[in-house]
Amino acid sequence: MKKADIGLIGLAVMGENLVMNMESKGFTVAVYNRTAEKVTNFVNGRASGKNIIGTYSLEELCAALERPRKVMMMVKAGDAVDQMIEKLIPYLEEGDIIIDGGNSHFPDTIRRTAYAESKGLLYVGTGVSGGEEGALNGPSMMPGGSPAAWPFVKPIFQAICAHVEDGSPCCEWVGENGAGHFVKMVHNGIEYGDMQLICEAYMLMRDYLGMSADEMHDVFARWNETELDSYLISITRDILAYKDEDGKPIVDKILDTAGQKGTGKWTGIAALDEGVPLTLIGEAVFARCLSAMKSERVEAAKVFPAPAAAAPEDREAFIEDIRRALYASKIVSYAQGYTLMRAAAKTYGWNLNYGGIALMWRGGCIIRSVFLGKIKEAYDANPELTNLLLDPYFAGTMKELTDSWRRVVSSAVMAGIPMPAFSAALSYYDGYRSEFLPANLLQAQRDYFGAHTYERLDAPRGQFFHTNWTGHGGNTSASTYVV
Amino acid sequence: MKKADIGLIGLAVMGENLVMNMESKGFTVAVYNRTAEKVTNFVNGRASGKNIIGTYSLEELCAALERPRKVMMMVKAGDAVDQMIEKLIPYLEEGDIIIDGGNSHFPDTIRRTAYAESKGLLYVGTGVSGGEEGALNGPSMMPGGSPAAWPFVKPIFQAICAHVEDGSPCCEWVGENGAGHFVKMVHNGIEYGDMQLICEAYMLMRDYLGMSADEMHDVFARWNETELDSYLISITRDILAYKDEDGKPIVDKILDTAGQKGTGKWTGIAALDEGVPLTLIGEAVFARCLSAMKSERVEAAKVFPAPAAAAPEDREAFIEDIRRALYASKIVSYAQGYTLMRAAAKTYGWNLNYGGIALMWRGGCIIRSVFLGKIKEAYDANPELTNLLLDPYFAGTMKELTDSWRRVVSSAVMAGIPMPAFSAALSYYDGYRSEFLPANLLQAQRDYFGAHTYERLDAPRGQFFHTNWTGHGGNTSASTYVV
Repeated sequence: MKKADIGLIGLAVMGENLVMNMESKGFTVAVYNRTAEKVTNFVNGRASGKNIIGTYSLEELCAALERPRKVMMMVKAGDAVDQMIEKLIPYLEEGDIIIDGGNSHFPDTIRRTAYAESKGLLYVGTGVSGGEEGALNGPSMMPGGSPAAWPFVKPIFQAICAHVEDGSPCCEWVGENGAGHFVKMVHNGIEYGDMQLICEAYMLMRDYLGMSADEMHDVFARWNETELDSYLISITRDILAYKDEDGKPIVDKILDTAGQKGTGKWTGIAALDEGVPLTLIGEAVFARCLSAMKSERVEAAKVFPAPAAAAPEDREAFIEDIRRALYASKIVSYAQGYTLMRAAAKTYGWNLNYGGIALMWRGGCIIRSVFLGKIKEAYDANPELTNLLLDPYFAGTMKELTDSWRRVVSSAVMAGIPMPAFSAALSYYDGYRSEFLPANLLQAQRDYFGAHTYERLDAPRGQFFHTNWTGHGGNTSASTYVV
Repeated sequence: MKKADIGLIGLAVMGENLVMNMESKGFTVAVYNRTAEKVTNFVNGRASGKNIIGTYSLEELCAALERPRKVMMMVKAGDAVDQMIEKLIPYLEEGDIIIDGGNSHFPDTIRRTAYAESKGLLYVGTGVSGGEEGALNGPSMMPGGSPAAWPFVKPIFQAICAHVEDGSPCCEWVGENGAGHFVKMVHNGIEYGDMQLICEAYMLMRDYLGMSADEMHDVFARWNETELDSYLISITRDILAYKDEDGKPIVDKILDTAGQKGTGKWTGIAALDEGVPLTLIGEAVFARCLSAMKSERVEAAKVFPAPAAAAPEDREAFIEDIRRALYASKIVSYAQGYTLMRAAAKTYGWNLNYGGIALMWRGGCIIRSVFLGKIKEAYDANPELTNLLLDPYFAGTMKELTDSWRRVVSSAVMAGIPMPAFSAALSYYDGYRSEFLPANLLQAQRDYFGAHTYERLDAPRGQFFHTNWTGHGGNTSASTYVV
């Protein structure tokens, strides 16, 4: 019997669909699942007549694989991954490759890569985005780990992944150890941001303009023909048109409390750790937390009245303003996300290809969009670009969008419509283009109460001053005793 | 020779001042510092003729202490604390008390309390706020750890801490293990928020109203006679009046790049971990990060022009609007901080006294203010208060402030003045009082691409629905294989 090209552990929807995808591209796949029944059902069902080999133990799975073995885990992120690695090791030989296709936290992948390599194995931690559909028809894949594993994994990954119009695969080697899962994490954070931005545009139309789901469906359908053309705008268009059994829009019947799976949170924590202002994604994560406080909100709504605010004079013009505000905010969100990746690359020693990352996200994944093509162009033109906002195309675009953006945020503020992500993005933009922020006062305060010292505009950087503000604080500057 | 009431390790400014403070209240203090010279200089200098005993080894220090020994470490947070604990253990006996007065991260204090207790010792991790001045004249102290230690530590701590007008000490037992350091961390996060709010008010006056430092000094002097009466407003008033040697305001010469010491970041991470929307402090931390990107901002300022915006018609009225906006934002910030403490108390099993925490912060520390008296009243009246905004006094106040707040944020948006904290607070307020947020759309999106399911307004909570949005997604709902 022909040996399998790759083995896959974990036959939930994502795992099954990846197997079907691989098989359809000519690969033979061996599969294993802890519950034997799942294997049997799969090989007798969807996998029947295909080059898919069911196995009932890890030993049998590993024995079925061509060398170097490639074993892909689609199991729940966390301890389950570590346990599976331990169980696999006895059946693997030098140079075999363990692949983690789950949403693992990147520090875990850094640790696991070193561990697998210490056992003579190779390790790949890969982000896989695109949900069930993507897994079946072509996901975006972001692999990192042991560089020596890439030549063996590449033919499979680049065959099953999404491809853009010119045929380029939405999968490239991202970098060492945890780089792939880091980039996937940022992808998920950006996904949180994109979804929140769409929700804010929707809330403005629903609650400020009083529009129906059908009317908003028309708006999102139009928007999807513009620079906003993207998967998330297109599914929003479709969701708004979807009718319940009684013929009424189903979106109006869904409870407004959002869940989360932790990757948005991780992105916020990574930004705090790196000292990178990732304000929009931060607000998007917190907006989900606030949405979950439904019963409190119902109470608070009784206490605090909405302000009286006039509707805009020209509704169509205002809808176009919202579209432009959304686009401007979205550019800021990606600028922030890329800044985070640049900072992490420095911290962890990754040599990230920023244009390549945009290409990976260009198709297959949840945030896929035409817009990512523009980002790829920006980084292809200048791989060292400090901030996406400074790219000539995006700088020019931002200048065209700001008037609309300001009108929308200002109107929402007066109307009492919460726009946390729109306004965080605008505050960042205005802060970023401020030569002088008010942090001079903040440094004075810190020096006043904690003798933290400050630098001066008229002295070289790196020279620190302390003022004896009160005249009785002593002249000892702040320091701490170190053991 | 009389034994000492307490020993203190680490003679940097904070340590020295705490020792002087303790001695002035009638306690005998033994001191130790790794660099012997520091001990000698101290006992022959500031400590000369006082009940302060210099020691030159940990053995000598511990031998000089009355039992149960109380050894307070004022050393750099991190490994230094663990190392010092290890070095102390050989010289301590059952029931002796190790006190960490540094800015330790609360998970470390949780771990260290358990460790010390496993050795038969008691442990106290205490927040100490108020800077050098506070350490000398009465800091705010937030002790947690082994409850059995409190009776021994209480007489010293409640003697040296700050006291409010009626004589109440700004130091009470906070709770088990890491509770004291957690509350201190939230204090520091709130400090970040308060400082950022003042900076935003300052920037509006400086850059939108074109006011001089002297004019702003007058404004802050007036504000300090209102509900904003606080330490940070008063030092801002004084800073704005402080002149450099050439007679010009020194604040105008300070570089606008803010430093940070990590506790603001920790607060943000704790909020993300607890799923509590702590948006204002988050923005305050990120604002410091953005301020540090000075050279990029100088470049960006050349690329992106400021919008043309008319100054307000009535300048004095607008200044009063700014004051009200600052107050409203500040109330939101404390509401968010208290929500975080409530969530953490549940997670870690702490029985926090929220009114008592307000009292501890009422004096001595950086965020001390008249306002905290109102918070104490709110929690004394209702210890189970879900959200500070729902307290009758604060709810009434917020309703009076919102018109001004909206005018200020809206004007700043049109004028291009970044107001990340003012607007984050307003977005939170408007989100909190929204019975219906747009998260229904977000849940539909998550169900569309990930089969994450959703709840319905017309069905009981806990009942989950999935829609086959595309008609070809399969009926399997999302799940993950668990090993």
